[in-house]
Amino acid sequence: MTQAKRPGGRTARVRAKILTATVELLARDGVSAFKYEEVADRAGVHKTSVYRNWPDRNDLVIEALSRHADQQIPLADTGDLRTDVADFLLALAAELETPFGRALVNAVQSREYEEVTSTIRGVFDRRLATLRSRLERATLRGELPPVDPLFFTHMISGPVHLYRNRADLTFSRLEAERITDVVLAGIRATASQGGDLASS
Amino acid sequence: MTQAKRPGGRTARVRAKILTATVELLARDGVSAFKYEEVADRAGVHKTSVYRNWPDRNDLVIEALSRHADQQIPLADTGDLRTDVADFLLALAAELETPFGRALVNAVQSREYEEVTSTIRGVFDRRLATLRSRLERATLRGELPPVDPLFFTHMISGPVHLYRNRADLTFSRLEAERITDVVLAGIRATASQGGDLASS
Repeated sequence: MTQAKRPGGRTARVRAKILTATVELLARDGVSAFKYEEVADRAGVHKTSVYRNWPDRNDLVIEALSRHADQQIPLADTGDLRTDVADFLLALAAELETPFGRALVNAVQSREYEEVTSTIRGVFDRRLATLRSRLERATLRGELPPVDPLFFTHMISGPVHLYRNRADLTFSRLEAERITDVVLAGIRATASQGGDLASS
Repeated sequence: MTQAKRPGGRTARVRAKILTATVELLARDGVSAFKYEEVADRAGVHKTSVYRNWPDRNDLVIEALSRHADQQIPLADTGDLRTDVADFLLALAAELETPFGRALVNAVQSREYEEVTSTIRGVFDRRLATLRSRLERATLRGELPPVDPLFFTHMISGPVHLYRNRADLTFSRLEAERITDVVLAGIRATASQGGDLASS
């Protein structure tokens, strides 16, 4: 978001390199453990360039993550919820292999940094809003009973995270569809039994 | 596993302190980023005690995690699969708040360290064996169609990880039962549709 402050200038290019390196190191080491020295090394700049621009670690992390703040995981509306959710899970799995995807996972887990956490929550809230409206359209069409979007996203995304955490497991369309099928069928079955999964 | 080498001796106590501190720092910083200096500080020993005993970082991590290698997440067999799975998820959520639970999550995500990864896989394999036999008994009793235990554990545990990653969300029996109900109902519904979830 702030990367275009001085478009084309040398300072802007240096800042962009530093922020890119920060995301890469957040992906590997997390918020509390990544080192300014390594950020400088990767960005090919002197350490003082990092310290001068971001004396506060929180600010560096927040600015680095904020460059991707509007990045969504694509969730289409083809009219076929099963296909759209399975595609969404494949796109999520792909994001979890990117530096930003890993950085986001690491950053949300580090609860020490309240300001970082609220930046991340902004990313999640925007993504949740997209999911919510997709689910509402599915409900209007009678594809799915009303469902809490946060619960839904945890049900479909949680298994993907665990598959992607382990390098020895594959995650392909087969797994994406199995997860989707179980969650959609489970929500339909439990809603008709009592409806206590519905919300808002 | 090696902690009882010199039972009661000073060396054994120092080693135990170092291994405990290592798990705490793995929980916060992960495999690649935790520092020997901080391990020594926390354990109240000199840095050379850590280096001398574990010149290789992999060995320190493996020994620290191995002390908990047989730790299971309790999975009872009361004859009521729903209750037992919900209890299991509450126990998993509790473990994810402990240093070992966080350390395990961080360690499995760090794919750079092949030997560490295979130690962790041992922990997971033992846990999976417990789940597999519980699921098999449920299938014999007609409570659940045959299901791949790895898929099942990802379906029920994945959402718990995402709830526990966020300090602003609660995870109580209500959430544990909602997850359990959707997964059990979804597996029953999809198995009767085609049975392609069955395995082994």
